[in-house]
Amino acid sequence: MSMAAVTKKKKVIIDTDPGIDDAMAIFAALRSPELEVVGLTTIFGNVYTALATRNALHLLETAGRTDIPVAEGSHVTIKKATKLRIASFVHGSDGLGNQNFPPPAGKAVDQSAAAFLVEQANLYPGQVTVVALGPLTNLALAVELDPSFPKKIGQIIILGGAYSVNGNVNPAAEANVFGDPDAADIVFTCGADILAIGINITHQVILSDVDRKKLEQSDSKYARYLSKILGLYYDYHMDAYSTTGVYLHDPTTLLAAVDPSLMTYTEGVVRVQTDGITKGLTVFDNTKKTYGEITEWCGKPTVKVAVTVDAPAVVELIMQRLLTDD
Amino acid sequence: MSMAAVTKKKKVIIDTDPGIDDAMAIFAALRSPELEVVGLTTIFGNVYTALATRNALHLLETAGRTDIPVAEGSHVTIKKATKLRIASFVHGSDGLGNQNFPPPAGKAVDQSAAAFLVEQANLYPGQVTVVALGPLTNLALAVELDPSFPKKIGQIIILGGAYSVNGNVNPAAEANVFGDPDAADIVFTCGADILAIGINITHQVILSDVDRKKLEQSDSKYARYLSKILGLYYDYHMDAYSTTGVYLHDPTTLLAAVDPSLMTYTEGVVRVQTDGITKGLTVFDNTKKTYGEITEWCGKPTVKVAVTVDAPAVVELIMQRLLTDD
Repeated sequence: MSMAAVTKKKKVIIDTDPGIDDAMAIFAALRSPELEVVGLTTIFGNVYTALATRNALHLLETAGRTDIPVAEGSHVTIKKATKLRIASFVHGSDGLGNQNFPPPAGKAVDQSAAAFLVEQANLYPGQVTVVALGPLTNLALAVELDPSFPKKIGQIIILGGAYSVNGNVNPAAEANVFGDPDAADIVFTCGADILAIGINITHQVILSDVDRKKLEQSDSKYARYLSKILGLYYDYHMDAYSTTGVYLHDPTTLLAAVDPSLMTYTEGVVRVQTDGITKGLTVFDNTKKTYGEITEWCGKPTVKVAVTVDAPAVVELIMQRLLTDD
Repeated sequence: MSMAAVTKKKKVIIDTDPGIDDAMAIFAALRSPELEVVGLTTIFGNVYTALATRNALHLLETAGRTDIPVAEGSHVTIKKATKLRIASFVHGSDGLGNQNFPPPAGKAVDQSAAAFLVEQANLYPGQVTVVALGPLTNLALAVELDPSFPKKIGQIIILGGAYSVNGNVNPAAEANVFGDPDAADIVFTCGADILAIGINITHQVILSDVDRKKLEQSDSKYARYLSKILGLYYDYHMDAYSTTGVYLHDPTTLLAAVDPSLMTYTEGVVRVQTDGITKGLTVFDNTKKTYGEITEWCGKPTVKVAVTVDAPAVVELIMQRLLTDD
């Protein structure tokens, strides 16, 4: 790789709750010459935060990348709620397909995820992209910790929300926003350069059972590892959606950092409902109408919301990154 | 008209808050041989309930149909809220384009709208269609008054909700559902045969300025009357939507009673958010996913939700009904 290419690498922090598709996204990030992964921050969601940290360290050790720091995130929501929704029925009680992997040798840095995010944003103003794959508690805490964080962070790419479609926790809410709706509303309206990718996008990106076979037949250590943990994820999708494929939520979101041209976007204000039967619902104002009254969307910063995705290109790129390990 | 055709007329009660497009819908109903209008019930929304009653009586007198009873509806929401959202900025302070029409000679019957609805459902079980053009308070009160009302009423066709699109009061909520969200949630889940028509449908049905000219040039008394009151409605649409046409919310909903084939429908559970920033938001569960947890949509009765409309056919039929008066 030339020096020019090296200097163009995009610094990325992955905020993650591994998680089977998180593992796939993290490996794809490590395998992407376009990216420099400067750290992982952990959060509850697919698993509790302590297990997310353990799994993040384990995945980096599996990839031989113990040079990358892991900063542990919040164990509770931004409003200190401890009753969390944990999707162990999707990812297994260990978060990685119930494979009983040994504990990692390393440990997390002595810094909270929020503090790490603020530190990196200050070290490299405008240059750090956060790829947020879980509930948005750590990012909301970073905004609270440093009000200039939204303007110092480069871009925040969020897997979160269900735009004009039903949710995946219930008909109203997508899982990551549902996990901490108050945090999500803080982040969506914080004024940072935000790209939101909802399940209306990721439900179009399916890793088929044919792709799964290709992973199983590959000699790549990433493909071999993922083949072990993917079984549970395929089973869940068959039960929940009656499909033989799986949705690539996290890998799709990661690839938006690698190649922004894989999607198209529209821009407007996103607000989150924080209680009631539609708790966790995201409402995007498409700004087609001039409302007669002041609304809760008025005067808030806009975000980009993905509206189309080149799904075959995303799947092809993910497979390309995972089918080799040299 | 043959006796056979007469006996096939569909009995209709129009629950209405006139309202410029309500006037158009009421006239179209009176001009439709497929329908027998057995009564109007009134509700707040475009105007306060007292004015809705006055306007309903006035419109029937204008049409020479004082044989049709008007039953006055609730002056407050189902939870007795008196702070109402009244859309006088759309319809004028008199609800009919600020035309200073004289007061009607007649008056409303000595029966509440809810009592009238229950009475008619009991008189003609399964045979009465309610076309609900305003907030759903009267229908929710009918359900409370007689728990068998949902099974005795024939069909309830509701102009209400914004399905997979932004609202018209704010990005979350459509005006009629926003007007009384608690009542709407009661009605949508009451188990009646319900067809919901949202603004995702009615925003496709536009009366253009060319159509307006045709009304202005017509000798029909209905067209002449409507031409007088439509100015304000056109002005509002230019301000709010930058369009030279107007949306035919109420007439489209009325025509669903005249000819159900003008739309296609899907079926599922609709719930309403009753507070917070998305108060009045409707969430339709399209039942594509088996959720892992019990949701607030589980076990509730389904309703039909319109998904497509033959907009040119709706406009043509409305024009046909209004351009003659013999």
